[in-house]
Amino acid sequence: MELWFTEKQNDNVQISYKINKINHTEKTPYQEMAVIETEQYGRMLVLDHFVMLEDTNEFIYHEMISHVPLFTHPNPVKVAVIGGGDGGVIREVIKHPSVKKAVLIEIDKRVVEISKEYFPKVSSALNNERVDVLYEDGIKYMQEHKNEFDVVLVDSTDPVGPAVGLFAIDFYKSIYEALKVDGILVSQTESPFDNAELLKKVNQSFKSLFPITKVYTAFIPTYPTGMWTFTMGSKKYDPAQVNVSEIKWSDYETNYINQEIFKSCFALPNFLKRLLGQ
Amino acid sequence: MELWFTEKQNDNVQISYKINKINHTEKTPYQEMAVIETEQYGRMLVLDHFVMLEDTNEFIYHEMISHVPLFTHPNPVKVAVIGGGDGGVIREVIKHPSVKKAVLIEIDKRVVEISKEYFPKVSSALNNERVDVLYEDGIKYMQEHKNEFDVVLVDSTDPVGPAVGLFAIDFYKSIYEALKVDGILVSQTESPFDNAELLKKVNQSFKSLFPITKVYTAFIPTYPTGMWTFTMGSKKYDPAQVNVSEIKWSDYETNYINQEIFKSCFALPNFLKRLLGQ
Repeated sequence: MELWFTEKQNDNVQISYKINKINHTEKTPYQEMAVIETEQYGRMLVLDHFVMLEDTNEFIYHEMISHVPLFTHPNPVKVAVIGGGDGGVIREVIKHPSVKKAVLIEIDKRVVEISKEYFPKVSSALNNERVDVLYEDGIKYMQEHKNEFDVVLVDSTDPVGPAVGLFAIDFYKSIYEALKVDGILVSQTESPFDNAELLKKVNQSFKSLFPITKVYTAFIPTYPTGMWTFTMGSKKYDPAQVNVSEIKWSDYETNYINQEIFKSCFALPNFLKRLLGQ
Repeated sequence: MELWFTEKQNDNVQISYKINKINHTEKTPYQEMAVIETEQYGRMLVLDHFVMLEDTNEFIYHEMISHVPLFTHPNPVKVAVIGGGDGGVIREVIKHPSVKKAVLIEIDKRVVEISKEYFPKVSSALNNERVDVLYEDGIKYMQEHKNEFDVVLVDSTDPVGPAVGLFAIDFYKSIYEALKVDGILVSQTESPFDNAELLKKVNQSFKSLFPITKVYTAFIPTYPTGMWTFTMGSKKYDPAQVNVSEIKWSDYETNYINQEIFKSCFALPNFLKRLLGQ
């Protein structure tokens, strides 16, 4: 019997992956969760019917959401990750020796547990002594912390259901206040081909809060359209001013980001510049 | 009744587009051809079951295969396009005022005719006085021309069936000889996630012929994985040396490429650099 998992990317497009095993399915208090083995990309985590990560290419998203702000900030010491219970972002964050504390705020404990069981490579840093894992509402957590973080990363699921609040301006305002005077926020902001209005709205929210707002992109083959955006809001540091040749890239053992990618990921095609009013 | 077109990208992945109309289907002497109306991207051309282009985003592929070499060459006068019967590449080529003659060598006359009927925006330049449209075998044509072209663009279908010869080193050798002493060849070379071995092989072929070989990328949402590569072989000019600030970009009315994209498209992620032995 042939088994296929189909992701309905929207009402008009769906992508299907041949699978050879269903490792796990579960309905947590927050979402539907599945771990499957795909023929094309290996093991895959699916939350609320959307692909979150797969073993072959998970490095791209995790490297790009984290290293871009962490190399933009000259001395990131305390970092918060909202969502991201799989641990992939944390794994990249603690590659930075300046980081003394990385706090993961994940609302759904089961994501962390399942990642530890099925994605050991992704979750490998969650037990690191520099990492705190909290099972809390990230929105509430940010409201309760002020002037504390150098970098905050919003590693959310797609903007439906429980994650909607993670794309709202009130949440970004709380993060702005939770950041130190020279802090940086990065959020994943979906595909510009598939969800242009969301990207535009988030960009406007960031611009209303941060003196420096930049959008950057990465190729992610298992996210809709393959083009993914991240939006950065920075209180002081501009990624365009980073001296990338001073970074010892090989220390970070990255599979995607390097000196050229750090610079080039901020180059936006005309249709995207127009969308963002640039 | 709901109608969906499904593209089998390989044995393990397929993508489906909801369609509201089948405009045309036909079996030409060379391939199966269909024109459909998708809900997501508008009208779409499908050749041998693979998406070739759609009205919404066709500009990306057409701009990137053409303007990168045409801005690398300081004075492209005579240009050949192999394949590309839809006319999208030709439309971009003749935006360059230096180009006095653009020759389209398309084996399948029906692609040109169907494009004129169903994709008028794409095929708009095919009747331009600077354009010659020839219905011939591109491999044979290149063997019969020597030292004639400034730029040759290989706008092939995927490397199955009739297009296999368009990825062979003998074909590239003929093109090398058909180019002038400072000529440039660019071929589309598929997705590195989905067809890494092909990209690697073409890269090695180009390196064995051209002193300068470069791979560049673009986001193309309706090609497998969304990450597409182009491989450039150049006898003399290095795109890294182009003074992009001297180009009057607004004259070219592009929706994707601009000064920053021209530079950044050559930045390759580590996994791709390793594949290419860089």
